[in-house]
Amino acid sequence: MGKLFEEKTIKTEQIFSGRVVKLQVDDVELPNGQTSKREIVRHPGAVAVIAVTNENKIVMVEQYRKPLEKSIVEIPAGKLEKGEDPRITALRELEEETGYQCEQMEWLISFATSPGFADEIIHLYVAKGLSKKENAAGLDEDEFVDLIELTLEEALQYIKEQRIYDSKTVIAVQYLQLQEALKNK
Amino acid sequence: MGKLFEEKTIKTEQIFSGRVVKLQVDDVELPNGQTSKREIVRHPGAVAVIAVTNENKIVMVEQYRKPLEKSIVEIPAGKLEKGEDPRITALRELEEETGYQCEQMEWLISFATSPGFADEIIHLYVAKGLSKKENAAGLDEDEFVDLIELTLEEALQYIKEQRIYDSKTVIAVQYLQLQEALKNK
Repeated sequence: MGKLFEEKTIKTEQIFSGRVVKLQVDDVELPNGQTSKREIVRHPGAVAVIAVTNENKIVMVEQYRKPLEKSIVEIPAGKLEKGEDPRITALRELEEETGYQCEQMEWLISFATSPGFADEIIHLYVAKGLSKKENAAGLDEDEFVDLIELTLEEALQYIKEQRIYDSKTVIAVQYLQLQEALKNK
Repeated sequence: MGKLFEEKTIKTEQIFSGRVVKLQVDDVELPNGQTSKREIVRHPGAVAVIAVTNENKIVMVEQYRKPLEKSIVEIPAGKLEKGEDPRITALRELEEETGYQCEQMEWLISFATSPGFADEIIHLYVAKGLSKKENAAGLDEDEFVDLIELTLEEALQYIKEQRIYDSKTVIAVQYLQLQEALKNK
């Protein structure tokens, strides 16, 4: 399992190495013996956090996303630091972006966001036992986010209005919707 | 709404223009007046299709994903052709990758896969009234995929085993699980 139709690398050309992503073009040998090119974006990976307050509100942040040229509402998230345990990243990003700390940070699922052209993996966690932290650590100097707390119904409405518009947040909201649906069965 | 913390473009540097993606680096003005750089991958966007057979099996394809260096199981999907109605792309990709045609192709949701560094949007459709098409159109010459049909329970197990491992397919399986949970309420 996992190697079906493997594409062997013949040559890798490094195109760009930036602050966040790298870009390379690989010449690959296809299963039929022919060759093709694959454009691959390398990304350090990220964590994201499903955090629900004691008042049953989902903790979200609104921020401007330059690639989309608009601001959208997302669950708290952040890039992995090299060599850092994703759980630690999750705790830090939750605190920096929202001012919340939690008693437990449980791994839920990891997934590739765009496996056709990028290797980014998001590790999604569920924070349990939320409380506001005094003197919480702040944001990076080029980060600007607004804290927003939504009920599940509001979050579903935000999805309809495309104010919630990214895959990890859709997965998070559907997860909470499923928890709710299964609880009430 | 949608322009909170807007980052104005000062300069755009085109780095790469490939067969699938483009890469640019924008100098931006931040809300506090300072400047920063944003690395942005441009992608044509894609469609993906939730297709369930009359035998209640979810139609999936297994394919090698070079950025991950492994093969994973995904719902049928494909890149948008320039100027093409996404619904037409969805019909074509379903037929080419799986041999299925459908009576209706209903839009469900659109979402950004990686809004931090890429503009890729996936338009997710639900195919209704599936049937096998005789002499279905085939795949592109550098595409190799295996058809796999899974029950919902099998799909959930595949997610646990990370054989299903990408955001659009996780969203699709959650959607079907929700339909099932809400139906049985």
